[in-house]
Amino acid sequence: MTLPDLLTRIQPADHSAMHAARVRQQQLTKPPGALGDLEDISVRLAGVFATPTPRLGGAAVVVSAGDHGVAEEGVSAFVQAVTMAMVNNFLLDTPAGPGGAAVNALARRLGTQVYVLNAGVAAALPDHPRLVNTPVRLGTRNLRQESAMTRGEVTAAILLGAQLAQQAIVNGADLVIAGEMGIANTTAASAVTARMLGQAPQAVTGRGTGLDDAGLAHKVAVVSDALARQGSQVSDPLGVLADLGGLEIAAMLGVMLQTAAERRAVIVDGFVEGAAALVGVALCPPLRDYLFAAGLCAERGHSAQLEALGLKPLFALGLRLGEGTGGVLAVPLLQAAAAALSDMLTFEEAGVPNS
Amino acid sequence: MTLPDLLTRIQPADHSAMHAARVRQQQLTKPPGALGDLEDISVRLAGVFATPTPRLGGAAVVVSAGDHGVAEEGVSAFVQAVTMAMVNNFLLDTPAGPGGAAVNALARRLGTQVYVLNAGVAAALPDHPRLVNTPVRLGTRNLRQESAMTRGEVTAAILLGAQLAQQAIVNGADLVIAGEMGIANTTAASAVTARMLGQAPQAVTGRGTGLDDAGLAHKVAVVSDALARQGSQVSDPLGVLADLGGLEIAAMLGVMLQTAAERRAVIVDGFVEGAAALVGVALCPPLRDYLFAAGLCAERGHSAQLEALGLKPLFALGLRLGEGTGGVLAVPLLQAAAAALSDMLTFEEAGVPNS
Repeated sequence: MTLPDLLTRIQPADHSAMHAARVRQQQLTKPPGALGDLEDISVRLAGVFATPTPRLGGAAVVVSAGDHGVAEEGVSAFVQAVTMAMVNNFLLDTPAGPGGAAVNALARRLGTQVYVLNAGVAAALPDHPRLVNTPVRLGTRNLRQESAMTRGEVTAAILLGAQLAQQAIVNGADLVIAGEMGIANTTAASAVTARMLGQAPQAVTGRGTGLDDAGLAHKVAVVSDALARQGSQVSDPLGVLADLGGLEIAAMLGVMLQTAAERRAVIVDGFVEGAAALVGVALCPPLRDYLFAAGLCAERGHSAQLEALGLKPLFALGLRLGEGTGGVLAVPLLQAAAAALSDMLTFEEAGVPNS
Repeated sequence: MTLPDLLTRIQPADHSAMHAARVRQQQLTKPPGALGDLEDISVRLAGVFATPTPRLGGAAVVVSAGDHGVAEEGVSAFVQAVTMAMVNNFLLDTPAGPGGAAVNALARRLGTQVYVLNAGVAAALPDHPRLVNTPVRLGTRNLRQESAMTRGEVTAAILLGAQLAQQAIVNGADLVIAGEMGIANTTAASAVTARMLGQAPQAVTGRGTGLDDAGLAHKVAVVSDALARQGSQVSDPLGVLADLGGLEIAAMLGVMLQTAAERRAVIVDGFVEGAAALVGVALCPPLRDYLFAAGLCAERGHSAQLEALGLKPLFALGLRLGEGTGGVLAVPLLQAAAAALSDMLTFEEAGVPNS
């Protein structure tokens, strides 16, 4: 498969199914609108699955990992080796089951499958039966100084993510979350977001894993320098991703595109995912119909992304972890929204007076 | 069991388990605080279950139904017969499984058990294997004119709820939601809330199932008349509940008290549940340690209740349905919060650099 093929496969949501779902919501045994935002979500899910009664199967989170040359600028509270160590943590056997990270614990409890992709960690990783270990390169170049990736590298990473999403879908996932791990990747995400939205760096650059004020000011300066290189233009979203993004960010975009091509729903988790989604919707506007926001995360710039994407978050729990954790938490809410639409009886079916 | 016995069984949360949980959260493989509100919730769950590694089993929603004499004042957009019809809807066999109402559809999808209690529907209901059909009386008196219940009736309804909660717990529920169905019960809940919080009726009276402006003004007048009778005082919470509450509201209080006595967590769903919780915490302050808010519901007065209870909602999806629907949606979030605390590896266990 090529990227242009993938993009052409993404079709808008089914508007007649959405209309039928809206009509059905008015007939179900509840006051009209009483399920609030779940009703809107259910209608959008009807459009994705092309039926007024969508019944969602399983969910999967594809955690893409990659390293960033810009980590050498000291933009993270953690050392680069943490990326590799966390990939190992995603794979470790623990008393509770496979994986010792937050995304593993949440996903296991909530019945979501976890897939792990090495899209470009800086050191070679040992093979593992639960790791797709096909790095495009050992980390990106330093985006403060030069383009992080070539266009070919970006495309390769997108297709890696797409392949793993397809595997998750074949294994039963109707909801797919693009998660990530990559020390310094909020710096890349801030740079991509600033360029795609035409925002000032300080408006979309946050503390990541926990920078202090001086660390944040330095991170803003690094993002500003990257943008000042003028290495890409907003009219060329793939160029922006190559210039300022990351291998795991490109892989996440691939996860999103493939999931949409297969008419499944994508849960957009946090700030790094948001950067991938901005590029994706610019590349392929119908992708937007397949995107569902999880929560509003604590990273500065996330609300600007969601506003640009036209997505309303489901919760605001102050998460700022990444890995797809917020997306995993959103899975039951989307499943429930679809179940209410599909499985409730109408006033007529239940013999309930409708006033 | 008597009500005084039940109240004395409720002990404060285990503060040493909470302290150990807080320490553990700092050691887990994530930036400190990165799981946001889930970390606070997990610490509170540690206190409820008296262990720094709580592992939550199942969940149940006890839907208590009751009618309200005040319905004759025209305070609801729906006729009183809807209460009975919705109880029937909770029990109907449908293609998707038992029960055709929203709470059934959500609970079935999210693995939560549904229990249905007739605490006082206005008409005699046929027996059904999934209905605890033991009404205290056929609806309350009209609280605009007189006390809704006697103290004996309130106590009987509380104990009914407590008994069914105990059954749910014996069947494996570690999380219990007190849900409700009762046409006109937001009027009762507004009256209870106004008295317990010393608020003006208009500040805590909302549109319920969908009143227009004139309907809302009339409902406020009815609540004002009820309060003007001076039939109860805030210093006597059980008296307030008898005076202004409802049979299903008393049963919900019983669900909460029994769940807390058994050291399980209570999910407080919406506005009617909030009224029961206000009475409960006034009767028995340690109850508060066992209460977890679901979402902020759309009914006016809910945020005042949550503030008084010191509870932070998990989401704000604009729900205004009742039945325990919001509580059911919160179940996976609480289960996930506990799983992260209990099942993640520490930096040391996972060999991840902690900086």
